[in-house]
Amino acid sequence: MTMNRQVLLKSRPVGIPEAGHFEIVERPLPEIADGELLIRNHFLSVDPAMRGWVNDAPNYLPPVAIGEVMRSFAVGRVHASRHPKYREGDLVTGLLGWQEWAVLPAAQIDRKLDDAVFAGLPSSAALGVLGLNGVTAYHALLEIGRPRPGDTVVVSSAAGSVGACVGQIAKIAGCRTIGIAGGARKVELCRQTFGFDDAVDYRDADFPAALKAACGAGVDLYFDNTSGPISDAVYALLRLRARVVVCGTVAYDNWAPPPQGPRIDRRVLVARARVEGFIATDWMHRWDEAVRQLSAWMREGRLTHLEEVLDGIEAAPASIAGLYRGENFGKRVIRLASDT
Amino acid sequence: MTMNRQVLLKSRPVGIPEAGHFEIVERPLPEIADGELLIRNHFLSVDPAMRGWVNDAPNYLPPVAIGEVMRSFAVGRVHASRHPKYREGDLVTGLLGWQEWAVLPAAQIDRKLDDAVFAGLPSSAALGVLGLNGVTAYHALLEIGRPRPGDTVVVSSAAGSVGACVGQIAKIAGCRTIGIAGGARKVELCRQTFGFDDAVDYRDADFPAALKAACGAGVDLYFDNTSGPISDAVYALLRLRARVVVCGTVAYDNWAPPPQGPRIDRRVLVARARVEGFIATDWMHRWDEAVRQLSAWMREGRLTHLEEVLDGIEAAPASIAGLYRGENFGKRVIRLASDT
Repeated sequence: MTMNRQVLLKSRPVGIPEAGHFEIVERPLPEIADGELLIRNHFLSVDPAMRGWVNDAPNYLPPVAIGEVMRSFAVGRVHASRHPKYREGDLVTGLLGWQEWAVLPAAQIDRKLDDAVFAGLPSSAALGVLGLNGVTAYHALLEIGRPRPGDTVVVSSAAGSVGACVGQIAKIAGCRTIGIAGGARKVELCRQTFGFDDAVDYRDADFPAALKAACGAGVDLYFDNTSGPISDAVYALLRLRARVVVCGTVAYDNWAPPPQGPRIDRRVLVARARVEGFIATDWMHRWDEAVRQLSAWMREGRLTHLEEVLDGIEAAPASIAGLYRGENFGKRVIRLASDT
Repeated sequence: MTMNRQVLLKSRPVGIPEAGHFEIVERPLPEIADGELLIRNHFLSVDPAMRGWVNDAPNYLPPVAIGEVMRSFAVGRVHASRHPKYREGDLVTGLLGWQEWAVLPAAQIDRKLDDAVFAGLPSSAALGVLGLNGVTAYHALLEIGRPRPGDTVVVSSAAGSVGACVGQIAKIAGCRTIGIAGGARKVELCRQTFGFDDAVDYRDADFPAALKAACGAGVDLYFDNTSGPISDAVYALLRLRARVVVCGTVAYDNWAPPPQGPRIDRRVLVARARVEGFIATDWMHRWDEAVRQLSAWMREGRLTHLEEVLDGIEAAPASIAGLYRGENFGKRVIRLASDT
């Protein structure tokens, strides 16, 4: 009998989920029913959004229940199929959960990976630059941010998996790009690996002045993954008709009640700025378009990604909290098996 | 020799301009030069935006200089013209200033009032519902707020000259309208005079709960003239894809540095809300369209306005501060002469 190790939500965190909020259990794999698939998970995803999935606060998905397998994106290979659309060997992705194997109805699969799109690329890219992170960057920047050639674009969490992709797409769109990241190593990543025109360290004492100097005449487009004091420094620099894409709020682990900060209303008014929220799940109908374009840019050498691979399901419980401590470099994934 | 009484900016306020920041002087009228007009001002405007015009902070117009005539909109009749486009008797409007007479180049006139549009309506309407306030309400609500039939629309400063007009246009657009105002008399004005479906008093201890009850399933469109704790209560109720029009920030007299409040980022993100600033001067090219439609609605009895008329130029210096204390009912104007 094949055993399946699963990471369950053990208790509900207030704020950041730590290792102790989860437990790893081992259970026998059930037989698959008609219409179901058995999937061997290759890579599990670790995303900041998972904090919201386990907190009992208004969100865009219902919270994971105590005792349930932790919700997560994952990529895996179909091991057995009782659904005509899928065959053994297909690589699929979706909310397969933090577990070694997934048994679920085929209808719950998000998509089969297109061999042509993924040729020569690791399937783990489907969890990052060719998955939710890249698709988020693509639609949020292009559809909400609407970059124009010559715009000065500032990105917070610029060395993160969304931010790094945003910066590169903004360059492709003809913008000048300024990354904000924490620590010298991430600032260097922004400049060297992800091609930002400049990058500043929000941990520096003179961060607001350094940002202002880097931005020159001001900020036309702010792609915000953080909120908090980082954003305060950027808002002070917004130019006429600036756009702010609110894509993440990782600076705070708890928004009930909301943290205090400088009110933005006057700045928004005087600049006639537009501040707009983005959640990738609204754009699922345009997923394939984004992935095709992103993979083409990767093949052309215009889009780079960086992965941080943790090995084994034992790494999962502590992996979300690490994101919020800024300890990761690149898109964090957990490898359970290799593609080949 | 005709003497001209003028209100000059005497000292620069930090925050709200009070009576003591101005002085009234009497000066002889100069001869008009070629290309100039002599205008007898009938009505001077008193607007919250005038605070920004005298403060030495980044704004959309340079600050009024010390010793200059206070900038203001006004409506007046051409008394003498040395420009072919204007004739004696024309009613004109523009930044004629807080003075009894204006001598200025014809190029500085904003517009001649169209007799057909203003037939049967007082020229003072050109300073309010058929002027900057109405045009602001029209474009800010329709172009930035984009109301949809059935939307729940909340308006702050709902008994004010912009807010009252916004509420009525939103009703015409098929929305359910909730006004926020200060004090029982203004709340009653919202309900009875301006036709809001409901109105709540932000001075009530249970204001957030009363607002929530009035809004039912939440807020689709928030037209904000205030910022501050009033807005905090509304943001908590924003529904999916809510729109916030940032049109005024009257809750605070000083934005350097910005006042503190709850951060809105998470709410904007989760609701995929759009928060956008509006300044009417961006929409001057579509002024006539707005005034034609607004005057048509007035004639049809679908749009009502309320004026508070102060008499004589002596009323001018204290009149801005009064707006910020909420002491006015209706659009505040200063009458210097009657139309007939």
